[in-house]
Amino acid sequence: MSKTRALREALNGPAIARIMGAHGALSAKLGEEAGFEAIWASGLEISAARAIPDANILSMAECLEAAAEIAGAVGIPVLADCDSGFGGVGNVVHMIRSYEARGMAGVCIEDKMFPKMNSFVEGNQDLAPLGDFAAKITAAKEARTDPDFVVVARIEALIAGAGMEEALRRAAVYERAGADALLIHSKQSAPDEVFAFRESYRGALPVIVVPTTYPQVTADELTTRGFGGVIYANQGLRASISAMRDVLAQIGGAGSTYGVEGSIAALKDVFALQRVDELLALQQRHDRLTATYAAPLD
Amino acid sequence: MSKTRALREALNGPAIARIMGAHGALSAKLGEEAGFEAIWASGLEISAARAIPDANILSMAECLEAAAEIAGAVGIPVLADCDSGFGGVGNVVHMIRSYEARGMAGVCIEDKMFPKMNSFVEGNQDLAPLGDFAAKITAAKEARTDPDFVVVARIEALIAGAGMEEALRRAAVYERAGADALLIHSKQSAPDEVFAFRESYRGALPVIVVPTTYPQVTADELTTRGFGGVIYANQGLRASISAMRDVLAQIGGAGSTYGVEGSIAALKDVFALQRVDELLALQQRHDRLTATYAAPLD
Amino acid sequence: MSKTRALREALNGPAIARIMGAHGALSAKLGEEAGFEAIWASGLEISAARAIPDANILSMAECLEAAAEIAGAVGIPVLADCDSGFGGVGNVVHMIRSYEARGMAGVCIEDKMFPKMNSFVEGNQDLAPLGDFAAKITAAKEARTDPDFVVVARIEALIAGAGMEEALRRAAVYERAGADALLIHSKQSAPDEVFAFRESYRGALPVIVVPTTYPQVTADELTTRGFGGVIYANQGLRASISAMRDVLAQIGGAGSTYGVEGSIAALKDVFALQRVDELLALQQRHDRLTATYAAPLD
Amino acid sequence: MSKTRALREALNGPAIARIMGAHGALSAKLGEEAGFEAIWASGLEISAARAIPDANILSMAECLEAAAEIAGAVGIPVLADCDSGFGGVGNVVHMIRSYEARGMAGVCIEDKMFPKMNSFVEGNQDLAPLGDFAAKITAAKEARTDPDFVVVARIEALIAGAGMEEALRRAAVYERAGADALLIHSKQSAPDEVFAFRESYRGALPVIVVPTTYPQVTADELTTRGFGGVIYANQGLRASISAMRDVLAQIGGAGSTYGVEGSIAALKDVFALQRVDELLALQQRHDRLTATYAAPLD
Repeated sequence: MSKTRALREALNGPAIARIMGAHGALSAKLGEEAGFEAIWASGLEISAARAIPDANILSMAECLEAAAEIAGAVGIPVLADCDSGFGGVGNVVHMIRSYEARGMAGVCIEDKMFPKMNSFVEGNQDLAPLGDFAAKITAAKEARTDPDFVVVARIEALIAGAGMEEALRRAAVYERAGADALLIHSKQSAPDEVFAFRESYRGALPVIVVPTTYPQVTADELTTRGFGGVIYANQGLRASISAMRDVLAQIGGAGSTYGVEGSIAALKDVFALQRVDELLALQQRHDRLTATYAAPLD
Repeated sequence: MSKTRALREALNGPAIARIMGAHGALSAKLGEEAGFEAIWASGLEISAARAIPDANILSMAECLEAAAEIAGAVGIPVLADCDSGFGGVGNVVHMIRSYEARGMAGVCIEDKMFPKMNSFVEGNQDLAPLGDFAAKITAAKEARTDPDFVVVARIEALIAGAGMEEALRRAAVYERAGADALLIHSKQSAPDEVFAFRESYRGALPVIVVPTTYPQVTADELTTRGFGGVIYANQGLRASISAMRDVLAQIGGAGSTYGVEGSIAALKDVFALQRVDELLALQQRHDRLTATYAAPLD
Repeated sequence: MSKTRALREALNGPAIARIMGAHGALSAKLGEEAGFEAIWASGLEISAARAIPDANILSMAECLEAAAEIAGAVGIPVLADCDSGFGGVGNVVHMIRSYEARGMAGVCIEDKMFPKMNSFVEGNQDLAPLGDFAAKITAAKEARTDPDFVVVARIEALIAGAGMEEALRRAAVYERAGADALLIHSKQSAPDEVFAFRESYRGALPVIVVPTTYPQVTADELTTRGFGGVIYANQGLRASISAMRDVLAQIGGAGSTYGVEGSIAALKDVFALQRVDELLALQQRHDRLTATYAAPLD
Repeated sequence: MSKTRALREALNGPAIARIMGAHGALSAKLGEEAGFEAIWASGLEISAARAIPDANILSMAECLEAAAEIAGAVGIPVLADCDSGFGGVGNVVHMIRSYEARGMAGVCIEDKMFPKMNSFVEGNQDLAPLGDFAAKITAAKEARTDPDFVVVARIEALIAGAGMEEALRRAAVYERAGADALLIHSKQSAPDEVFAFRESYRGALPVIVVPTTYPQVTADELTTRGFGGVIYANQGLRASISAMRDVLAQIGGAGSTYGVEGSIAALKDVFALQRVDELLALQQRHDRLTATYAAPLD
């Protein structure tokens, strides 16, 4: 099955699609290894890994390169966080062609202005005009070549304080515009808001949530309530930050790495993730073939 | 003080220069925050973060881009791991010009063949011919424009099983060729081998070690024994791998992120590393100035 | 003299600074060879070389990479066409830091909305609000580290049909905001409009023109009328298009390249532009040094 | 038909495949427009466009990016010049995966050492050991996923002065190793040498030539003599160099572009190559859809 179809089926299947955030090939492989159904090429993670705000400071080419690196490293589908689409409709079409060509299974665009600001930051969260954003969704759908390529419309109405009615209105128009799935975003500390959205939304699209601020909700409960996908958007990166901070402080304090050896991955684990064995096997086979071809033909 | 001079002085100062490995801007910032004197743009970390073997599969442009990202994110000097120099002497000169132009304080090249294999892997570890490598060092020195830019010659004789005498012979020739520092690499489980090298080496250059396989040695002991630098080349990345693996397994098992919230960095910590506050302040100042400039001139 | 100072002095000197457009290192070298004072890293040329509209479809990272390639290839200053600044004030500050770090002598930003459309296309040419754009100029100036780095404010009021008064009003505010030079753009078939602007503008900044649509004007006349710079923004690329079209048609028609050999650069000219001689000399010196270092020390 | 199959069939068809060199999207589009069957992503052109010697100074990532830009811009197949394969067998496999993923129809690798030197330069032209190179061809074939993806083995024996017998010996072994086509390179001023090779070669593979130094030979004659492909490897770039040189000198001399307007492509031609019309139509459709979606639902 193609990755695009795999993502589409995961979002529309009986159990919720669990999607793990990543900022590069390595973290994506760990997400695949842990059994998640798909990878989220997270704008927050990718920008944070570069120590740059999640506010469209990184340009499309850089986000694309990071997402393509991820897609090339895993066998499961990758859904790319494409912020608000990187500009006007021309940018959206260029984005779809570029992300599809680089192996993505789908993209997610959100109905905010360019440049955006991360939804959890107390800054400008102005919504894009409904008509303009919906028309971008249609343009995105028309630009893809694989009909299974997934276009997720992310609704920021609740983040922007525009209210549930506006969120539902947008859901209906985005569905009409051709979206393959909806992402309803919330920064409440409880899931009530997204539950309410899910109950009131009468359309046919799978609905995705990102429970960063309401971590108590479980995948099982989300499945029961009819959600199609859940994105764990930044926990992997946050785990790596606390671990590196801790280990680096220990090394600095002790003047050696001796005390941390037991708690960090072994070198052989690193080599396994890099697939060094595959390279060594390739080189050994190469040496044998070299000898064969170098021998005179009889 | 320039970063090139800062690195030079750190390597030649009374206390050993403690150099922390990084694979990107974020991990480099954590190294700076933890008080290390410099950052090692580690070939192993950079390739592992992309899930690619540390064997010159990543090409120079990609290594350079990663190192430049690191150098742009920290105020401390960055020493870039440049493997065996990416090819012939033309590659070495292009490398020096490129790395210096992108803000590096120095580079390290090792006396192995291209393509290299990571020193801890049981694969081909053939040494480059002494004369050829020494001449590359001279070319590197002649190609730099800032006289403080540091060129480290890494000796792989002990890794390759060529013996202490060969290591010392190479040290003398590399010094004569213009190297600014030596890195003596070893994969022994105790530091005896590098201690022996340091005692026998009669030259004037600072000597750097990478105690990956002999983690018990401390910075204090290395200072006492006369070493100039110590590189903690991969522990940060290894900490991030074990932490991500652990946290992802917990999320998968529990079906939620609730149980890991206490052990991972808070979102506000991520924002601080991205310097979101600086961006918000910039936007606020912009709004004020916009109003000022929009007002009619009197 | 630094390239930033060289550009600044050229724009403020007694004779007009003649600035030649380029789309890559090779065309920039030809501009330098032909004696122009500076190179224009042209948005139109760079996007056209990639067969992509000049409408912010290429993202900042790609424009920067092209401009950096140009700056690395020539000894004369490079002024980079940065469209409308790639987004909000955060993008402008990131842009200034990035372009300055990559060796540019200055940048030019224009007072249009993002995404922009090339000024000669009959499409959306909406002006950016005056206050917002002026505040971006101030942000740009405050973000640079080299005080000689040049920030050019490009006025699109005449392109947008907003009239001479608006153009002059903007000139005054942009000067107050800290611009180092003004670029007054026009798509008239005669230079009268820019002459009128130059006569009415009472400020102290050098004024640059781009006579794409009024090619009859000469550098001498522009000097006499008090202009500071003239950009030949796209003629080099246009020459290459017509020449390649012609030569490819001839090759296709004749079934051989014999007939075009006399009209195209010789291979040795290509090698000279690539500085193959420098590489061969480097390799020869390397071979001598290799032998020297390989010889036993006495 | 896929581009890989199109290339394969062109090389094996009754008429010779005429393949035009390019250094970017624009020149590739001109080659497509002129009716050539395929595009050669030329190492010489790509490095010369960056003013860098054709000697593996540009690393694989940069060559790949240039080739991918070309492949994304044209509807005809692209054969990528991959020099000697960028290193060891690990590099070759990484190269095949990367180039196939980025839309290439095939690659060509030559049996020289890394780093290579352009075949027309009087520098080191040492041949790679036959067995090693043949084994790389097998690795390349095994690494591709599309069975139609074309791997061309380029024989440099005549360039290196190793003689016809060696060239034919290598042809036989490369065919046995799985090559899909052979490229026999020569720097003679007449085609006799490649004619002799074609007559003596008894295998089944299509044979490609690059008549840079023997331009008098025609595609018809090559077809008659049984060749499968002809690459015009650098004439487009050389045409652009002479044209830009000429036009820039004229502009510098006259102090205006007036005199060159008649001989260079019009701006509207540039816009057509950029497909500005397509973008404007997209924007107009977007405006209409925006109005539709913004209207209240009935």
